[in-house]
Amino acid sequence: MKKLINSPDSVIADALKGIEASDDNVRIDHDNRVIYRREAKDSGKVALISGGGSGHEPMHGGFVGLGMLDAACAGEMFTSPTPDQMLAATTEVDNGAGVLHIVKNYTGDVMNFEMAAEMAVDAGVKVETVLVADDVAVEDSTWTAGRRGVGTTVLLEKIVGAAAEEGLDLAAVKELAERVTANGRSMGMALTSCTVPAAGKPTFDLPEDQMEIGIGIHGEPGRHREPIADAKSIAKQLVDPILHDHDFTGAPVIAMLNGMGGTPLIELYLMYGEVVALLEEAGVKVERNLVGNYITSLDMAGCSLTLLRADDDMIRHWDAPVRTAGLRWGL
Amino acid sequence: MKKLINSPDSVIADALKGIEASDDNVRIDHDNRVIYRREAKDSGKVALISGGGSGHEPMHGGFVGLGMLDAACAGEMFTSPTPDQMLAATTEVDNGAGVLHIVKNYTGDVMNFEMAAEMAVDAGVKVETVLVADDVAVEDSTWTAGRRGVGTTVLLEKIVGAAAEEGLDLAAVKELAERVTANGRSMGMALTSCTVPAAGKPTFDLPEDQMEIGIGIHGEPGRHREPIADAKSIAKQLVDPILHDHDFTGAPVIAMLNGMGGTPLIELYLMYGEVVALLEEAGVKVERNLVGNYITSLDMAGCSLTLLRADDDMIRHWDAPVRTAGLRWGL
Repeated sequence: MKKLINSPDSVIADALKGIEASDDNVRIDHDNRVIYRREAKDSGKVALISGGGSGHEPMHGGFVGLGMLDAACAGEMFTSPTPDQMLAATTEVDNGAGVLHIVKNYTGDVMNFEMAAEMAVDAGVKVETVLVADDVAVEDSTWTAGRRGVGTTVLLEKIVGAAAEEGLDLAAVKELAERVTANGRSMGMALTSCTVPAAGKPTFDLPEDQMEIGIGIHGEPGRHREPIADAKSIAKQLVDPILHDHDFTGAPVIAMLNGMGGTPLIELYLMYGEVVALLEEAGVKVERNLVGNYITSLDMAGCSLTLLRADDDMIRHWDAPVRTAGLRWGL
Repeated sequence: MKKLINSPDSVIADALKGIEASDDNVRIDHDNRVIYRREAKDSGKVALISGGGSGHEPMHGGFVGLGMLDAACAGEMFTSPTPDQMLAATTEVDNGAGVLHIVKNYTGDVMNFEMAAEMAVDAGVKVETVLVADDVAVEDSTWTAGRRGVGTTVLLEKIVGAAAEEGLDLAAVKELAERVTANGRSMGMALTSCTVPAAGKPTFDLPEDQMEIGIGIHGEPGRHREPIADAKSIAKQLVDPILHDHDFTGAPVIAMLNGMGGTPLIELYLMYGEVVALLEEAGVKVERNLVGNYITSLDMAGCSLTLLRADDDMIRHWDAPVRTAGLRWGL
């Protein structure tokens, strides 16, 4: 295992120190492993919290800041944070306007956020939850009942973050979040496995001439394996299932071509070019895009595509200023 | 070889299509492989051009845009662009105020930019050149006489780009660029080799338990190989040679912890935390930083550290708005 770490046991604690050192706009509760926006609470603003297993950076800690999240809970590698972490974050960020929990559909995350929400409600905090389940690859998976929650989470945190900044109330923020999840779809693929530091070896074996279509962000099995194909064919295997699942014509679309962590940017740009060519053929008009590493799987080589059928409101919130380690513009 | 490409021959042409599709702020001359800012020439502004072998994305094409470069020439993989490409870019962006060539110190780049500058001068364009030679690892290398040019290039393009935007004349822009190169130092390391698509196999062999300290961005040999150590020791092997080479105390420092392309962000944050701890011990105060993939070596796993001893002017230009695919804030 070749990694820039001190020890498999201290990866997350050590990385949190680095995030703290690099970003003046966040502060970190190292005991609870929660990353917070540094600014004083903006009275009246709905607070947004997310979290999940570590290993997907910049998601979620890199999306804490003005215009996106108020806090992110970092779990162990590929493991849900605990209800205690989520409760600490929820009570800390609430200023009376309520808190939205943004939860990716994995059984552990769902259960723990549910428990934290109940405890927070008991403590007098208004909590709503939005569940992201956008991965069209498979129904049910290793750690999921129903569809896995992946790339749409990034777009949702940006869009709903801007709406909360604008002063929408909790019901309106939740309604917008539901509209985003209803209209987002993702599909991923891997050229290689990732290696979890504590395991010390690849999560799965993928022969030198094979790729896996429909991979999950923790290395959960996808749809099938096949010999590595050219970028055009791979793009088609990402685009087709997404377009088959939802109508993306007749509306502005936000597209994200996401790297899994070990794939260089030149390949991501190349893949984005192939994806856009297919979308144009299909009459889908991409109005905004992201190309880069946003929801990763440690050192996995591969990529995923997320499409969001947006509306003018979502585009406006997308364009609003954001200042986080992972996404920044207008500030 | 596991890569998201159509064919080794078409990687650069295909990636340029993807860059064009993803960034409304650039236009691409596909024949000459030059990436240009889309906006009309701002009369009176000194133009900045860089370029080099492909495979280091987002450098340089991802740094074209408001507040950074006016054009970037993309060479073949790890191979200098031709004088013709550079001449086309130089004459295209000039509006009478002159052009600064930003050249990394590799023999091919130096020779070709020199030839292009001579031809441009013959055609009536004022051209100045700044040479970046900041890699403290080795004197002379596979493709370089003297020190290799690496990470300081990124910081220089940002700082000098802002100065040009502000309206400094060619002499002042060049003077600032020289001040940046004189005060920037870098040092890198690799856990794995990169694989050039046309070669189809790793550029060099690095056993599973070894790392290379002082690696070049094309896989040129570094100082030595040794067994993989913990992040703290690796950080020390990057920080010490840099601090030994130049005084970074008593001034604001801009630090970049750069990924080589195949290293996930969580490891880069972790390394940044270790680097900052060492710098604090040494009395070096980091005022601004970048953590991420900015000057890469295809899919190489590893990282590099760049420190710039800045002054108030450089910090002000650093903070100025920038809108490129690779760096963006304030816009």
